[in-house]
Amino acid sequence: MPIYSPPVRDLQFAMHDVLKLSETGLPGHDELDRDFTEAVLDAAGKLASEVLAPLNAVGDQQGCKLENGVVRTPEGFGKAFEAMKEGGWTALDCDPEYGGQGMPYVLGVATGEMFVSANMAFNMYQGLTHGAYSAIHAHGTDAQKQTYLPKMVSCEWTGTMNLTEPHAGTDLGMLRTKAEPQDDGSYLITGQKIFISAGDHDLSENVIHLVLAKAPGGGESTKGISLFIVPKFLVNEDGSLGERNGVSVGNLEEKMGIHGNATCVMNYDGAKGWLLGDLHKGMRAMFTMMNEARMGVGLQGYAAAVPAYQNAVEYAKDRLQGRAVTGAENKSGPADPLIVHPDIRRSLMDQKSFLEGARMLVVWGAHQIDKAHQGDAAAEGLISLLTPVIKGFLTDKGFDSAVLAQQIYGGHGYIEEQGMSQFVRDARITMIYEGANGVQALDLVGRKLAQDGGKHVMAFFEMVKAFLKENAENAAVADFIAPLKAASKDLQTAAMFFMERGMKNPNDALAGSYDFMHLFGHVTLGLMWAKMAVAAQAMLDAGEGDKDFLNTKLATGRYYMARQLPMTATHLARIQSGSKPVMELAAESF
Amino acid sequence: MPIYSPPVRDLQFAMHDVLKLSETGLPGHDELDRDFTEAVLDAAGKLASEVLAPLNAVGDQQGCKLENGVVRTPEGFGKAFEAMKEGGWTALDCDPEYGGQGMPYVLGVATGEMFVSANMAFNMYQGLTHGAYSAIHAHGTDAQKQTYLPKMVSCEWTGTMNLTEPHAGTDLGMLRTKAEPQDDGSYLITGQKIFISAGDHDLSENVIHLVLAKAPGGGESTKGISLFIVPKFLVNEDGSLGERNGVSVGNLEEKMGIHGNATCVMNYDGAKGWLLGDLHKGMRAMFTMMNEARMGVGLQGYAAAVPAYQNAVEYAKDRLQGRAVTGAENKSGPADPLIVHPDIRRSLMDQKSFLEGARMLVVWGAHQIDKAHQGDAAAEGLISLLTPVIKGFLTDKGFDSAVLAQQIYGGHGYIEEQGMSQFVRDARITMIYEGANGVQALDLVGRKLAQDGGKHVMAFFEMVKAFLKENAENAAVADFIAPLKAASKDLQTAAMFFMERGMKNPNDALAGSYDFMHLFGHVTLGLMWAKMAVAAQAMLDAGEGDKDFLNTKLATGRYYMARQLPMTATHLARIQSGSKPVMELAAESF
Repeated sequence: MPIYSPPVRDLQFAMHDVLKLSETGLPGHDELDRDFTEAVLDAAGKLASEVLAPLNAVGDQQGCKLENGVVRTPEGFGKAFEAMKEGGWTALDCDPEYGGQGMPYVLGVATGEMFVSANMAFNMYQGLTHGAYSAIHAHGTDAQKQTYLPKMVSCEWTGTMNLTEPHAGTDLGMLRTKAEPQDDGSYLITGQKIFISAGDHDLSENVIHLVLAKAPGGGESTKGISLFIVPKFLVNEDGSLGERNGVSVGNLEEKMGIHGNATCVMNYDGAKGWLLGDLHKGMRAMFTMMNEARMGVGLQGYAAAVPAYQNAVEYAKDRLQGRAVTGAENKSGPADPLIVHPDIRRSLMDQKSFLEGARMLVVWGAHQIDKAHQGDAAAEGLISLLTPVIKGFLTDKGFDSAVLAQQIYGGHGYIEEQGMSQFVRDARITMIYEGANGVQALDLVGRKLAQDGGKHVMAFFEMVKAFLKENAENAAVADFIAPLKAASKDLQTAAMFFMERGMKNPNDALAGSYDFMHLFGHVTLGLMWAKMAVAAQAMLDAGEGDKDFLNTKLATGRYYMARQLPMTATHLARIQSGSKPVMELAAESF
Repeated sequence: MPIYSPPVRDLQFAMHDVLKLSETGLPGHDELDRDFTEAVLDAAGKLASEVLAPLNAVGDQQGCKLENGVVRTPEGFGKAFEAMKEGGWTALDCDPEYGGQGMPYVLGVATGEMFVSANMAFNMYQGLTHGAYSAIHAHGTDAQKQTYLPKMVSCEWTGTMNLTEPHAGTDLGMLRTKAEPQDDGSYLITGQKIFISAGDHDLSENVIHLVLAKAPGGGESTKGISLFIVPKFLVNEDGSLGERNGVSVGNLEEKMGIHGNATCVMNYDGAKGWLLGDLHKGMRAMFTMMNEARMGVGLQGYAAAVPAYQNAVEYAKDRLQGRAVTGAENKSGPADPLIVHPDIRRSLMDQKSFLEGARMLVVWGAHQIDKAHQGDAAAEGLISLLTPVIKGFLTDKGFDSAVLAQQIYGGHGYIEEQGMSQFVRDARITMIYEGANGVQALDLVGRKLAQDGGKHVMAFFEMVKAFLKENAENAAVADFIAPLKAASKDLQTAAMFFMERGMKNPNDALAGSYDFMHLFGHVTLGLMWAKMAVAAQAMLDAGEGDKDFLNTKLATGRYYMARQLPMTATHLARIQSGSKPVMELAAESF
């Protein structure tokens, strides 16, 4: 069975040594001292590694089953869900007014990484509930909040997001689900939704569906859509469960991965629903949650690859095969371990340098969201800009990383029993859902780049520039500064190319959007690595911390700068080739 | 159900318009005129699209079953195998002395692409038989050839390759399977082999296993291993089947993909075997087949991605979602088809430009093998050098291409019912088997590059140089010449770096081996595209051929040159960073 080892020390490094969270002066952050977060992470890590991880393969093998209209989750999921609830993990960063613990989002992300790594499909049940909680918290009436939030914070009731319909994915303007207003202020919802993760299951008493639908008067475009709360069981005045609502599971999809999570076709047949937020302003309500939801998928992207990497490391150390080209290292054994071979190292370093950089980026991003929650408009703008990068880049690279890990196993990696295939199959969905990565690239280049007059991308460049200036004389981290500077210049050149050319021909920008997202991703990870290097070097200079850990951190970062950042030049070259090579062919010529 | 459309025209273009096969003067090639090969390809394409392709999903869903020690293939495989045998497809490029049709290998490859695309798992039953046929044909005694080859050419008997053992994959020196010589000249084979594709099944009367084992006196290294013929049923003097040999199926593996092919654990319990080739020279016998086998897997790598691309194109044309940024194109419809969006184009062009380049490379490579079979030592050296590139690069990129195709489907691509997941899962194995791609990179840099004093890599550079010179004044293909020149220079710089640094520290070469393989792959595909461009342009100038097809070919090639070839600079930068970033960490630091 695959192992999973919670990366507590690395998360602590990101939160305390790099971000110095408890010194930021943000409300609630003074509690986040090193000992406190370590205790929290240790406890979450224990649940992740001892309870959730052993169920990961079980979930994959058994999958969910639809029996008489009810979805059954795999063996052991129910008990594990109870443990998660009892530990208070579902309430960690929720509002204390509704039973939450009021911790910053960054701590939710740090523990979340471990839950995702241990069992991604399982963790989605609470992850989606958190998303629905946030939507109701931000847009619900007081009565709605009182009715739903306490039960959702505790995960006695879980939540879902219902956007997609068979003919309407990215293009939500085409959706057909109708909401008919009733005299009592409620609506009757009728239509079919697909790809509803955690759409039904046996882990909670009730499922609270948030459903996008068209109410009269909203017009036919995306803009006039409204958002509704549609509970599986109606809720009585006293909070107890009433009768079954007119929503049912039409089908359970067979998927490439995340078998442990129920992906449902949901049929709404005049189900009773209540407007959430303003009429015809449903998309706006959705968008306020989007940064968080997409950040969550970006986190999944790399977190799913963490155990794949950990197992690949163990395999590379244990598996004896061949001899080091520089002379046998395991002389008394029949062969050397795989890890002596340079190309195995190359693969492990690609994974390690990506995963640790991604972890830093997501923790840093969560910190920006915490700042935004406190009214920091600059942080809000920055994270809004970077959200498609975090979602698109980290999920693409996370998948690649899992594939690299699987490859180290050779033929054994292709056998389901080993568990490496599951990591790859599970990671694959993160590139697709919550806006396929091409849509993230479009969001980045088509919307975010020019948002507020390009203010946020300028702020990003200023941030990099300030960092470079601040550390220009720091010779110990010179290996980080020069590559970051070069990569950042490539990014600016690309942004300039879009500005100059995109006005005349928007295709010139959009044909390069995917490359731009990756170029941006590399620069951002380069910045994160440079920040980590500065922090690690300062600790070494001060004689603080674990020397081996810090030196390993520096070496890993140097690898990223030397062997990953050069990729920005290729992305820039692709972007600068413009739209002609991309758009030249007639559709019939494909 | 996924579609499959045989690319007959494109294969004809590669064979006739670019390579002008029937004019090469090679024995047997004068028969290969355009009409003849078109008839062959049409017939193969019909079998592929009408018989094999409809069974692809069936094979994936049903898989193989082990019942009372016997493997049962999925429904319909038996009938399809009969159709393949009856059509003579298994005998196409086999020796007429044993019932083959004596066609050049290049035609076997061209038809093979279609069989693989239609149903990779199914085609492996005959593909492995062909490999075993080649080994016996090259190394068998007359009696062995007479006994086995006619039945294997017709696929009445199928073949397997038995190399891997649980603890010995790449490092065959560690294998434990023993061969004890008997008084009658035979051997008793005892040991366990794993990952034996087509190890047992119900498609043929007999299975002829080729088994690597250690006979007394060979020592403990790889060099002393011998190769044995071990039939499932012993063969009587008169050629009829005798008693069951001591070989049995220990287990059937559950894999990520190619479910339709039986991957077996084979147990040899004193099974009767006969030496194939010289005693203790088994590895040499294996190696003579290696170029062909690895070329075959390189072909699988891209061929598996061909139907994925074709289906993605159909989906992109049919699926209505969003509007073109330059103005609605499907004004009367509710939305524009996906194919209007630049990022969808980018993905489709990445796929198309890779797949057509890969097809040209494999057809060209097969032609080199045909020349080598006729005693052309330069062709032999060249294809030996390029074999790891063809295997490693085409399978990595083929997998990426299938993932891109799946991505175009959005959420629908993740649902098994659509078939896109299968293409990805099936393609994944090609990066692993027949020497994992890291081993290909090692073979390229550690062995092939310096082989015969570096003669073959110099010949490759000379070939590129001569081509560039020949076409330097051809302004119509200038878009191809300059990028090829730059990429080729990157490759030479990398080779030089290895030569200078590799002597002092072999890790400096090996740490860059994977990047070198990809760098070489891009240059090779760039060369193929340039060759195709010159041919297409000449036809256009002469007013020959289908103008639309030729112009599409040129545009597709320009895309590859503009948007893929720049990747060589990043590979070179990675290589030039040397081994330090790769090798710096202690094993415990991972």
